[in-house]
Amino acid sequence: MKKLRTGFQGALGAFSQEAATQLLGDKAEVVPLGRFEEVFQALIRGKIDAAVIPVENTLAGSVHENYDHLLNYDVRIGGETNVRIVHNLIAPPGVRLRDIRKVYSHPVALNQCLKFFASNPKIERTTFYDTAGSVKMVMDEKAPDAAAIGSAAAAGMYGGHILKRSIEDDRRNYTRFVLLIAPKRTLAPEQAPKVWKTSLVFTTRNTPGALFRALSAFALRDLNMTKIESRPLRGKPWEYLFYLDFIGREDEVRVQNALRHLGELADFYRVLGSYPKGD
Amino acid sequence: MKKLRTGFQGALGAFSQEAATQLLGDKAEVVPLGRFEEVFQALIRGKIDAAVIPVENTLAGSVHENYDHLLNYDVRIGGETNVRIVHNLIAPPGVRLRDIRKVYSHPVALNQCLKFFASNPKIERTTFYDTAGSVKMVMDEKAPDAAAIGSAAAAGMYGGHILKRSIEDDRRNYTRFVLLIAPKRTLAPEQAPKVWKTSLVFTTRNTPGALFRALSAFALRDLNMTKIESRPLRGKPWEYLFYLDFIGREDEVRVQNALRHLGELADFYRVLGSYPKGD
Repeated sequence: MKKLRTGFQGALGAFSQEAATQLLGDKAEVVPLGRFEEVFQALIRGKIDAAVIPVENTLAGSVHENYDHLLNYDVRIGGETNVRIVHNLIAPPGVRLRDIRKVYSHPVALNQCLKFFASNPKIERTTFYDTAGSVKMVMDEKAPDAAAIGSAAAAGMYGGHILKRSIEDDRRNYTRFVLLIAPKRTLAPEQAPKVWKTSLVFTTRNTPGALFRALSAFALRDLNMTKIESRPLRGKPWEYLFYLDFIGREDEVRVQNALRHLGELADFYRVLGSYPKGD
Repeated sequence: MKKLRTGFQGALGAFSQEAATQLLGDKAEVVPLGRFEEVFQALIRGKIDAAVIPVENTLAGSVHENYDHLLNYDVRIGGETNVRIVHNLIAPPGVRLRDIRKVYSHPVALNQCLKFFASNPKIERTTFYDTAGSVKMVMDEKAPDAAAIGSAAAAGMYGGHILKRSIEDDRRNYTRFVLLIAPKRTLAPEQAPKVWKTSLVFTTRNTPGALFRALSAFALRDLNMTKIESRPLRGKPWEYLFYLDFIGREDEVRVQNALRHLGELADFYRVLGSYPKGD
């Protein structure tokens, strides 16, 4: 079986790696990278075959940086999956909860465990560039009073002991990841999916009612929109790019009709990909 | 003249203070506060009479935290203004550009001066909780090799020397600020404004076409939408809150009709305020 070199941001054991496994199973040969932009660059330069990036979290909202990269780099979305985010307090074996004075993790993870910190006021929060990386660091340093917040996979990867499981405030904590592939590659799904999703980005003319008319291209054809996200348009203050997800596949007739209609109304649009809808 | 105690996040000399001056002139008695949430809390507890918060930047996008607070705290938007963001490199007098090895500022400001850092590779970027606060810190510490990025007002406030003016990558850098008032207060505009804007937040039923129909309440009455922002709805994964700005005043007949129509379609809506449109 040919492996797909699959890049993601963060250290081994990151939630992105779990998403890569959900999307590609054994086919993924994971390549941890430092920053989101490096992931996009590695993909367009052919250093990796695929990439997995987070695009939104049900509590924190969209990962806006990645929306900007989706516009700026010529990549395609080839799949999506949702990962349930469980935050665990992880320390070197032998360190007890009552010894902990410092907890390291990504700022989003720290912010999603506020109840834990409120009931443990002696513990100081310290931000780190990523969750799995904070687990690795705490295991490397072996300080007697430090812990990290990360996934069970990260604990397993670095030999950490889970002092407290699932310390997140809200269990309805999911992150949606998308699989990226270089524009000329195709990725045959394992089995014919029942439901497809399409993602695109567009700008409207800056006229009254322009966004409403652009959305009518989809609504009038009963294409169900699942997400809309706006981002500032560079160089045009107070104008916006819109990122839209809807149920349907690019080569369906009614989707083709909707896209032709959008083309009449939008200043610019680009389909980012059609892919099997995640569970 | 009765002064209005006007809270903002950051140290004296912050861009928010400039926005407060643009909005209230001499009436503003500024109250610097530590975090955005403290600003909202001070306002609802009556510790301040008004507040000024940033809601979006033309390069970085929306300040999502403040959108979340606008929903969670019972405040009204009473005005808006745009501030041109000019980033200056500021150091204690006598420190020369070639001495600088460390530059402190808010991460958004550091990210908006990437060309400066690319052409000065010996300088290390260090994040700080706010721009004006980084200027104050550098002036307090008087290190011979440190500078901060902040406004000319912050340089003046703390006696800093501007080593290099306007080091931002893109001059089309504006931040939109809104003026918040407690819900029962009113704030008479200086003169009858010509154009009004209204901001509201709503959720739709999770059915196909729901957002399109909600927007039709405005589009069918020729109410010009100037911004839409989506945020995750807590407790309902993959459902969204929408924040909408449009041109019009809450007590106009067609706006009243649009709101009644929205009420039929939306699960929930709340008008955040009608206020004179900024320039």
